[in-house]
Amino acid sequence: MEEFFPEVDRIAYEGPESDEALAFDYYDPEEVVGDRTMAEHLRFSVAFWHTFTEDGSDPFGAPTMRRPWDDIEDPMEQAKARVRAAFEFMDKLGVPYFCFHDRDVAPRGDSLAETNENLEEIVALIEEQIERYDVELLWGTAQLFYEPKYVHGGASSPDADVFAHAAAQVKKALDVTERLDGENFVFWNGRDGYETLLNTDMGLELDNTARFLRMAADYAEDIGFDGQLLLEPKPEEPTKHQYDFDAATAFAFLRKYDLDDRFALNVEANHATLAGHTFEHELRYARTNGVLGSVDANRGDKLLGWDTDQFPTDVYATTLAMYEVLENGGLTPGGLNFDAKVRRASFEPIDLFYGHIAGMDAFARGLKAAHALVESGELTSFVEERYESYQEGIGRKIVEGDTDFEELNRHALDTKPIEVGSGRQERLESVLNRYVLEP
Amino acid sequence: MEEFFPEVDRIAYEGPESDEALAFDYYDPEEVVGDRTMAEHLRFSVAFWHTFTEDGSDPFGAPTMRRPWDDIEDPMEQAKARVRAAFEFMDKLGVPYFCFHDRDVAPRGDSLAETNENLEEIVALIEEQIERYDVELLWGTAQLFYEPKYVHGGASSPDADVFAHAAAQVKKALDVTERLDGENFVFWNGRDGYETLLNTDMGLELDNTARFLRMAADYAEDIGFDGQLLLEPKPEEPTKHQYDFDAATAFAFLRKYDLDDRFALNVEANHATLAGHTFEHELRYARTNGVLGSVDANRGDKLLGWDTDQFPTDVYATTLAMYEVLENGGLTPGGLNFDAKVRRASFEPIDLFYGHIAGMDAFARGLKAAHALVESGELTSFVEERYESYQEGIGRKIVEGDTDFEELNRHALDTKPIEVGSGRQERLESVLNRYVLEP
Amino acid sequence: MEEFFPEVDRIAYEGPESDEALAFDYYDPEEVVGDRTMAEHLRFSVAFWHTFTEDGSDPFGAPTMRRPWDDIEDPMEQAKARVRAAFEFMDKLGVPYFCFHDRDVAPRGDSLAETNENLEEIVALIEEQIERYDVELLWGTAQLFYEPKYVHGGASSPDADVFAHAAAQVKKALDVTERLDGENFVFWNGRDGYETLLNTDMGLELDNTARFLRMAADYAEDIGFDGQLLLEPKPEEPTKHQYDFDAATAFAFLRKYDLDDRFALNVEANHATLAGHTFEHELRYARTNGVLGSVDANRGDKLLGWDTDQFPTDVYATTLAMYEVLENGGLTPGGLNFDAKVRRASFEPIDLFYGHIAGMDAFARGLKAAHALVESGELTSFVEERYESYQEGIGRKIVEGDTDFEELNRHALDTKPIEVGSGRQERLESVLNRYVLEP
Amino acid sequence: MEEFFPEVDRIAYEGPESDEALAFDYYDPEEVVGDRTMAEHLRFSVAFWHTFTEDGSDPFGAPTMRRPWDDIEDPMEQAKARVRAAFEFMDKLGVPYFCFHDRDVAPRGDSLAETNENLEEIVALIEEQIERYDVELLWGTAQLFYEPKYVHGGASSPDADVFAHAAAQVKKALDVTERLDGENFVFWNGRDGYETLLNTDMGLELDNTARFLRMAADYAEDIGFDGQLLLEPKPEEPTKHQYDFDAATAFAFLRKYDLDDRFALNVEANHATLAGHTFEHELRYARTNGVLGSVDANRGDKLLGWDTDQFPTDVYATTLAMYEVLENGGLTPGGLNFDAKVRRASFEPIDLFYGHIAGMDAFARGLKAAHALVESGELTSFVEERYESYQEGIGRKIVEGDTDFEELNRHALDTKPIEVGSGRQERLESVLNRYVLEP
Repeated sequence: MEEFFPEVDRIAYEGPESDEALAFDYYDPEEVVGDRTMAEHLRFSVAFWHTFTEDGSDPFGAPTMRRPWDDIEDPMEQAKARVRAAFEFMDKLGVPYFCFHDRDVAPRGDSLAETNENLEEIVALIEEQIERYDVELLWGTAQLFYEPKYVHGGASSPDADVFAHAAAQVKKALDVTERLDGENFVFWNGRDGYETLLNTDMGLELDNTARFLRMAADYAEDIGFDGQLLLEPKPEEPTKHQYDFDAATAFAFLRKYDLDDRFALNVEANHATLAGHTFEHELRYARTNGVLGSVDANRGDKLLGWDTDQFPTDVYATTLAMYEVLENGGLTPGGLNFDAKVRRASFEPIDLFYGHIAGMDAFARGLKAAHALVESGELTSFVEERYESYQEGIGRKIVEGDTDFEELNRHALDTKPIEVGSGRQERLESVLNRYVLEP
Repeated sequence: MEEFFPEVDRIAYEGPESDEALAFDYYDPEEVVGDRTMAEHLRFSVAFWHTFTEDGSDPFGAPTMRRPWDDIEDPMEQAKARVRAAFEFMDKLGVPYFCFHDRDVAPRGDSLAETNENLEEIVALIEEQIERYDVELLWGTAQLFYEPKYVHGGASSPDADVFAHAAAQVKKALDVTERLDGENFVFWNGRDGYETLLNTDMGLELDNTARFLRMAADYAEDIGFDGQLLLEPKPEEPTKHQYDFDAATAFAFLRKYDLDDRFALNVEANHATLAGHTFEHELRYARTNGVLGSVDANRGDKLLGWDTDQFPTDVYATTLAMYEVLENGGLTPGGLNFDAKVRRASFEPIDLFYGHIAGMDAFARGLKAAHALVESGELTSFVEERYESYQEGIGRKIVEGDTDFEELNRHALDTKPIEVGSGRQERLESVLNRYVLEP
Repeated sequence: MEEFFPEVDRIAYEGPESDEALAFDYYDPEEVVGDRTMAEHLRFSVAFWHTFTEDGSDPFGAPTMRRPWDDIEDPMEQAKARVRAAFEFMDKLGVPYFCFHDRDVAPRGDSLAETNENLEEIVALIEEQIERYDVELLWGTAQLFYEPKYVHGGASSPDADVFAHAAAQVKKALDVTERLDGENFVFWNGRDGYETLLNTDMGLELDNTARFLRMAADYAEDIGFDGQLLLEPKPEEPTKHQYDFDAATAFAFLRKYDLDDRFALNVEANHATLAGHTFEHELRYARTNGVLGSVDANRGDKLLGWDTDQFPTDVYATTLAMYEVLENGGLTPGGLNFDAKVRRASFEPIDLFYGHIAGMDAFARGLKAAHALVESGELTSFVEERYESYQEGIGRKIVEGDTDFEELNRHALDTKPIEVGSGRQERLESVLNRYVLEP
Repeated sequence: MEEFFPEVDRIAYEGPESDEALAFDYYDPEEVVGDRTMAEHLRFSVAFWHTFTEDGSDPFGAPTMRRPWDDIEDPMEQAKARVRAAFEFMDKLGVPYFCFHDRDVAPRGDSLAETNENLEEIVALIEEQIERYDVELLWGTAQLFYEPKYVHGGASSPDADVFAHAAAQVKKALDVTERLDGENFVFWNGRDGYETLLNTDMGLELDNTARFLRMAADYAEDIGFDGQLLLEPKPEEPTKHQYDFDAATAFAFLRKYDLDDRFALNVEANHATLAGHTFEHELRYARTNGVLGSVDANRGDKLLGWDTDQFPTDVYATTLAMYEVLENGGLTPGGLNFDAKVRRASFEPIDLFYGHIAGMDAFARGLKAAHALVESGELTSFVEERYESYQEGIGRKIVEGDTDFEELNRHALDTKPIEVGSGRQERLESVLNRYVLEP
């Protein structure tokens, strides 16, 4: 059988002392951290689109990347080669999951029916590959933003035919996700938002989006898909303003339309920072509100205003993210999907390995640091002590809903000058450093 | 009686041809625009704190502003002079409303009880002034961010005594707002957020904030206050991250805790842009979700990352804001409160007049432009046509909830290539220019 | 002869009262404003690339735009059609200038030599069109960012062969610009910057860029090109950090390498705001430092972090820009080039007209407002008075270099408390509004 | 003698295994790294103003910090206690340098003469303390932004008397810096910029600033001060736009006015990020252009738009900064000044120690990581190889200035398709992680 990355063997854990670039410094899938192995904690996933269809083009430049399957002319054969390459890649890397959009894996046909047929044929191959390799589907999704018909949105399009087409596409994508035993299904509908309010009926667009999602959830139920349904917040890009701006906006939407029992969130690091939040904020917010579903593991550049989708290599970010994941009791059935792409200037196939290794090592180290932090209780005990006045007296009454403004007023009038304690931020940052550097 | 601004007479409308700086170019309170006078549409309010207590200090500089009442040494006498100056100012300016924080109008005493007494005494004077002049209270609020005890927040403080104190303060502020026939009551609790997640129990803090607001609403009901209760979103500053980040975050909170029937939003222009939204976005979002309550009329500097609270002088912004207000059927019982301060370098008392005149003229012109735009139907008809496919056929079924993915799929499979129309943004921007420039 | 935009006649000035969308509300080329006609002041230029080669694709979406020449299969025939369409367009619009990149007008061949031949052939056609229509070349430029070889930069590439290729390309572009009597030549080398400092020798890259520009200027001189040479600042995108970050950075570079006599700047509005400056700041800075050469007239979205290149429709921005241009004594030999593209959702050919009309009207109105402002002297006289202490006494000595710290110290020790005046920002913003709204 | 921090002993190095919060995990002043001790490399300095005069107030809140010297009523006695506390603090912390503004150490008098006398008296005490403790003056500066007279700037003020006063103040500050053997003198004139261009003569203001600096340099020479003179760039805050926006803008200014031989730059981390640059970018730019003079070691919050001046605790940032410092051959006579303040919520005196320990440990670890990175040559050799085409052939000719566009054109016409190599960013980020985590 053809091999797409013959220069690469299975990537092994060798530890940080090793000089080998094609080895893990920190990720050892079998290493037990707390009650699970690293692999079980991290549930890494490769994003099919970034890794197997990106070509390095950007708004100012032509493709820079030549992949081993680029010479195949027949679109279906090329698509199949890409799938085989993907499984070879994931196998060599030792990643247990992948994610895909319907339109990334299979070429479009001349009609929706033909496109569906193409998709079916490729999905059959994927099914075969899943059986052969130890790789499963974390989530599927429908790509509702690339084609010109989606220029004004999918579910939020001003055109009802587009809405219907989007529905048909999601229906099919749900079908194949179910067929492949996908554990989740994601909605990121990148044109559902607006370019200018001057031409936009925001109320109708939001209502229609809710109608769409409700029908999607009903259909998922009808076909027996019991995976998790996920919305993915992003503030802007490609549109000027997206309706799922951030976790809070998506949560507001879910609450308004009574959809919060049926959908959770897929939180992406780069989308968080574009929205003016840290990654850990979005995770904490989603966790606190019971909607932390899955994670797109990447990073942005806080000085750049677009979605750079870089591989996550900042160990502070991975530590704080894994802290939230541990406090959440893990992410299952979600996972850590590398929604990340190698830079345009990192155009050699080997860079795909370097990028993923960099990200996997950073998360492995972050897991160990976060676990040590949790185990030590240094943060938790500080926080518990800080809020202990809510454990008894008037604090307890507040928490139990057993007081009112009259009583609180009497309490306040009787209280001597209040002395609050230091927030100790600088000290806590030193503590964090110790766990990041010596986990 | 003493006069604080003897160099200024009542500000009159003179039109743009006039050279008089102390006159309105566009604001003519009696001018009828559509079904109301300008004054009825705009419901302008002066912010007591910015206009009568700001001293021009900033994090790098000492006060620059000397006001006529600054020489009075006794704090209560100074506070009273300030109140009389405020009403003289508002009367000369012809502004029908004002807003205040409890701690801006009256000095603190040695205890909460004494502070309350001070407040009562000043409120009696305000009551007298309200009767004398044609000026009313748009809203009152409690200042829960200045004092050291609020360093970690008010309702979200880790200390239950602080929570109680905040409750007592809001109780009193509600009492005096009711006494003064205030039409609204605002909650902007600027320390309710976090400095670092490392020391923060976000879940408890949000729950407590909801408990606080529920008790506040109950208390308002108890005392027969039938004004509107308002949350004011702001993304950051003074804290690193505020819980009421933007309209959507505040709405999510209200929905989660079933408070959306009892609270609406006070939308501020500068807070909108700090959160990465346009002013008109926040207004549209709030309007669409039924929670547009009132407006803090100011502007930020999109290139600066803090709350500059400048007077609103951009006629595009005022036009688009008034468009939302008109589409909302007006703001009543809310209004347009100038939460704006003159620049540190505009330290002369006369600059207070220039600032408000600039803002009032900009909103008056914006009202006329927005009204002309609404009347013409140029935008509305474009938008209606754009979404007309939801008026019949499959579109109507979607909107009426009378279809599902199976039917939509069949429809999509039968649909010929979909042709959508241009969004026409550039043309619509020309149209907007025409109404802004020739209303 | 074929007509590409048969649905459009010559765009005429009809004034704001007219309902005609395909007419100017404010731009009347013959109208005299001060000492020149509007056309002479504004020197509008169409950007060939945006208007005739953009297809509406973005990082998340396929092309949306079908142009009349898109069906022509032969690349040279298509290129020729595009040129003829461009001149028809410019003629109908009444724009007197255009700008182009070498690679936008003519297709690449299999070798540099063949590419050069293609370019020559197209340039011959352009020459013919220039003669036929009343349209001239504002500036030419070489596109040194699209091809994969430029992935790490052109003049700043780590590869000397790429440097040589870039030189060859600029040489040819200078040749054809000279042949077409271009009045300027622009350098925007979008990959001259870095993606990561980890792999970058900034010192060598800057030195090489200076060597490149010096050779370019020498070559221009050799061939007798007496147009203006221009650098175009941009802070980022496509690279993480561009060497010509803003006007000040470009000016620092020119001073360091003694190139400030040979190059001026092409200031772009959207690049200004991406760099954290207002458009008028960059114009003022360039003007003050004697390097204001030409202008790319567009606008960004201050809430978005990428180069949106929208048509300039904000009359405040155009007024303040034209104020700088008037104070500069005009822009000649530079001009106002619409480096702007219609939105992806404005994909119909007619939108190209709407976009340009919107921009031209906004600048025409801005010119009138700026002219009225200058004529009135309201700003100038305020500013002169503000600085009048430098006209005599110690101020005069400071300006004339006729004092030192010893004397200034004695002066300060003798000075009574200093009273400075208000900066009057709010009042000046009202004044600006009056001129913008009633020019 | 009174002790201000009796609860703290001398802070010792105990290593990361120690549980002691008041000890260094990484900073061991005597540890030799390469050719110097840690202390010699790092040259830490305490900022007098942040550490001994900040009170925790912010634009929305009252002071939160009570210091041991706050109860002393007499201003001069309080100032002296503060100085003694400072030296006790620096001694316990083991920091070898400090920095101060004239107005932070001594109170203002009723006249400039009296203020100068106060300063003299305090400086005498400082001189005494310097002798007693092993602490020296890294730099002095004059505070030209706090007082109302500086509302429109110091050297760039529209008022010549203000210019003179600023000159007198700098003169005195240079005198005392010389007297205290200060190794540098810094100019950060926080109001030298503008609030609005509408009232600003940028040309005159820049010219005057240059005149001011030239006179300052002349005066420094006159009095035999042979320390380094430094400009400190900052983009904005307190003004809307500062003239020393970033390193490049300051360098442009120095080149334009022929001041680059007399001034270098004091680069601050937080100012870098406010200007849209990374800290390491500003260091690299300054180093490459020969003007890296000293460093203000702190950090901002990239999601916040103001100068948060936090203690630097991100080891990536300190590693990349120390990499530049090492490549610069050290910073002498500059140093690493902690221009950082504890958070408003970290109001206890002990937090001052925690903050500095956090910063010193982060820089110590960064030094070790950077040193290991340099020693290993992993980056350097990659970079050298990347640019090796400039070592011979056409590349060498380019670098030696021995070619022209004609020759380069011939070379390009002869060159076969150019193949450039990958930039390897992801791999290099893995390498960086290895050195940060295992130095």
